[in-house]
Amino acid sequence: MPYVPEGFELAGVPCGLKASGRDDLALIHCPQGAVAAGVYTQNLVFAAPVEVDRSRTPRSDFRICVVNAANANACTGERGLRNADEMTRLAAEACGARREQALVMSTGVIGEYLEMEKIASGIAAAHSQLGRDDDSFHAASRAITTTDKGPKITRRSLTLNGGSALLSGMAKGAGMIGPRMATMLAVVMTDAALQTDDAQQLLAAAVSASFNRISVEGHMSTNDTVLLIASGKACGEPLRGDDLSAFSAELTGACIELAKMIPDDGEGSTHLIEIEVAGCRCEADADQIARTIAASNLVKTAISGADPNWGRIVSAAGYAGPTFDPQRVSLVINGAAIYSNGVPEQFDAAALSRSIRENRETMIRLDLAGGDSSAKFWTSDLTVDYVTFNADYHT
Amino acid sequence: MPYVPEGFELAGVPCGLKASGRDDLALIHCPQGAVAAGVYTQNLVFAAPVEVDRSRTPRSDFRICVVNAANANACTGERGLRNADEMTRLAAEACGARREQALVMSTGVIGEYLEMEKIASGIAAAHSQLGRDDDSFHAASRAITTTDKGPKITRRSLTLNGGSALLSGMAKGAGMIGPRMATMLAVVMTDAALQTDDAQQLLAAAVSASFNRISVEGHMSTNDTVLLIASGKACGEPLRGDDLSAFSAELTGACIELAKMIPDDGEGSTHLIEIEVAGCRCEADADQIARTIAASNLVKTAISGADPNWGRIVSAAGYAGPTFDPQRVSLVINGAAIYSNGVPEQFDAAALSRSIRENRETMIRLDLAGGDSSAKFWTSDLTVDYVTFNADYHT
Repeated sequence: MPYVPEGFELAGVPCGLKASGRDDLALIHCPQGAVAAGVYTQNLVFAAPVEVDRSRTPRSDFRICVVNAANANACTGERGLRNADEMTRLAAEACGARREQALVMSTGVIGEYLEMEKIASGIAAAHSQLGRDDDSFHAASRAITTTDKGPKITRRSLTLNGGSALLSGMAKGAGMIGPRMATMLAVVMTDAALQTDDAQQLLAAAVSASFNRISVEGHMSTNDTVLLIASGKACGEPLRGDDLSAFSAELTGACIELAKMIPDDGEGSTHLIEIEVAGCRCEADADQIARTIAASNLVKTAISGADPNWGRIVSAAGYAGPTFDPQRVSLVINGAAIYSNGVPEQFDAAALSRSIRENRETMIRLDLAGGDSSAKFWTSDLTVDYVTFNADYHT
Repeated sequence: MPYVPEGFELAGVPCGLKASGRDDLALIHCPQGAVAAGVYTQNLVFAAPVEVDRSRTPRSDFRICVVNAANANACTGERGLRNADEMTRLAAEACGARREQALVMSTGVIGEYLEMEKIASGIAAAHSQLGRDDDSFHAASRAITTTDKGPKITRRSLTLNGGSALLSGMAKGAGMIGPRMATMLAVVMTDAALQTDDAQQLLAAAVSASFNRISVEGHMSTNDTVLLIASGKACGEPLRGDDLSAFSAELTGACIELAKMIPDDGEGSTHLIEIEVAGCRCEADADQIARTIAASNLVKTAISGADPNWGRIVSAAGYAGPTFDPQRVSLVINGAAIYSNGVPEQFDAAALSRSIRENRETMIRLDLAGGDSSAKFWTSDLTVDYVTFNADYHT
């Protein structure tokens, strides 16, 4: 199975923005056009590329997306907006399209102006290297990373409209924001055919179950962007009915897969923590409680210390907002029941601590026994290395 | 100026709950009765002593409060509730009062039953040592601490009704909760005379501007309790009008003073961070934005690293919820303007970093230029020591 769906070409090149000289500019090109949808940060303080893309999606005649790392082009005022637009003009011009058909994503330091000569030469170089092979995909996925330990990619093959299609994606993100690092970006590409409105709707639903259900430290970036690009080169007509539902499930699955890679790669993290809250009256309650547990530094440090600390988890649920009966609450960590119906169980704390220490993933399941709704959320643990990394100003 | 107001007796003794053998049980006694008001945790998962006190305040015939450290009597079910009630019965019996006239506070590990023999002998010992001298006050203030570096106390003399009155208080708290530490507790005592309803109303207002405006890591405890006890032994009739307003201002001032000591003593903290958000349409907006900035691990690590990182502060404001115009935002840290009208200023980053590093308190002032309301919030920075302390399960 290849990484690049039909109707796509990619490239990733170094243009000198990263001091290391590594790849830092990517192009994603659909020579014959594609449907494109976008979901963006809800931060009031949003970056110039978000402003540009928001005004251009969803659309049915997308042609090219340019991404740079190492500079987020955020908090850069009017000049930043002109630079973001200029990036799309340069990318569009290189492939004979109009600037409105081009999108842009940026990630990296904020409050600094882009070095536009480097961007321009990077776009030219990347355009000359556009390719359909796996290497081109890998180069693009490397070019969008900043503090990530490595590229975050996924692919899956789909059977739709009686034919086969490909869905693949790349993401970046390890911490949320700041002059040393920034932002979650993702692009999901498919050669399945989608109507523009369907693309936007499916992406919004997929993001709310995936990229909106993760945190490293809960700090929302100025640049967060997820794009879905559908070239329509496989499986004929735009998807409808069961095919559309099947695609939606696969899209959500791929987004969850990519999303989980972000807290798994969270700065300094030693555990990916999956928090499932069940037995709620509605999904919004479950989401709110899972999110609050994930935001607790006491929960996050407990897991990094391999401490099966039910008190921190149950008390975080208690201040999350939604009401529930504390006397019906039960908690399971890595399969071990440690708190049932409002009181702690007798359990082998040493064995459970060992299980947490020896597994990269910690599974927390809290059941409120008050309904049928549930939600999952993923976060990183909190370690000394996270603090060192984010406090270390002069390195 | 003494610490103990007229009409009060205090004691602090060791009863064996703290493994160290230090003072761990305190009594606060008003032989001739007092008005008592209370404000409690809003956590759905609240401890037994909170349940007891909530049902007994406000009241006009308060007699005695018993406080123990090292065990929070939380998540202990029916038996925990019986134990909390029994603590009040024992304390009331010792001083010839009814159990309903007694209050109780507990702090420490959660999910474990109190050792009631130790509590009973501690109450007897403390009752025999009740005193009005400063040493008695200090012993009580030590006995309520857990992971605190030391007692947190304050006192001020007031001129009211043409006479003089005393207002003094003690608090404990350094981290919010967990089997190794728990809870913020505070008692403010005065010999001024207050009507019961006034006491409750003034305390609620003072707490919302003080103890509800602090965080260490933002984890709300099961046991948080603030009591106001007014013996009425000074200055004659219950306060009214200007005297009541003057008392209210002093009470709020004393509560802010005590409250700030908590993040200043935050586990592992090297800075007390004061966040003032001004230029808001209403105080609730200012409070929400200040609270969100204070909850950001990226802001907290920036300060521990002496990094004047405007991007983390401005972007945290952006996702706090209230709307504002990002182009009018300005930010001052320790008196230096580093971000004005939506763009970064040129500033001497090295000098500002030095100012952060060399001062215990960091002053952050964010002005949204959108109204006349403001709010202050205090938090700790986030350090390697915090993580080590809270992750270190097996010590």
